Amino acid sequence: MDPDAVAKAFVDHYYSTFDANRAGLANLYQEGSMLTFEGQKIQGSQSIVAKLTSLPFQQCKHNITTVDCQPSGAGGVLVFVSGTLQLAGEQHALKFSQVALFASFILFCFLGLRCFI
Amino acid sequence: MDPDAVAKAFVDHYYSTFDANRAGLANLYQEGSMLTFEGQKIQGSQSIVAKLTSLPFQQCKHNITTVDCQPSGAGGVLVFVSGTLQLAGEQHALKFSQVALFASFILFCFLGLRCFI
Repeated sequence: MDPDAVAKAFVDHYYSTFDANRAGLANLYQEGSMLTFEGQKIQGSQSIVAKLTSLPFQQCKHNITTVDCQPSGAGGVLVFVSGTLQLAGEQHALKFSQVALFASFILFCFLGLRCFI
Repeated sequence: MDPDAVAKAFVDHYYSTFDANRAGLANLYQEGSMLTFEGQKIQGSQSIVAKLTSLPFQQCKHNITTVDCQPSGAGGVLVFVSGTLQLAGEQHALKFSQVALFASFILFCFLGLRCFI
């Protein structure tokens, strides 16, 4: 399958799940997965989802601007996403970028989220 | 060696070489390396350096704001960089972010450069 198509499908799935049901992201991680969130490293599906569901906002909407991807060897795909994050009640959207390394829709690494003001 | 220390050393080396002698970046790539530059995919050390040395500016200075990294398996390191790029004669710096997957200071993948205005 075309890596670009896989990456776009993954990104659509990840962010629509994040916006609709953050706890549902647990299926995309495994115990070896790591999330770096604004510099903080968090390992394992349960800890990662606990972090994401404890963020100080309930409703949000990601809008994706760019999706770049490359095959990373061993069947993996490296994807780099940029876009905006609109929080409920906030006038201005945050710009963000994030990086994922995954295979078979399971995330090994997830760097970011870094926001730019 | 600590992956964070490796990532920081790599990032310092890459961007100081970029700013001082772009052609010298050739040593950091091999034939299988790929650069995605604002959506355009370029493969192989020679083609990548030809692209970087043909950019429409001569003097530039990267300032790094954040470096996030994670081990990516098989001895690789995944690093996510954000910062600003100051071009000679331009009043405002560009914000950029970029992603690298490397081992032994050889780049396999290099995603970005994506600039934010």
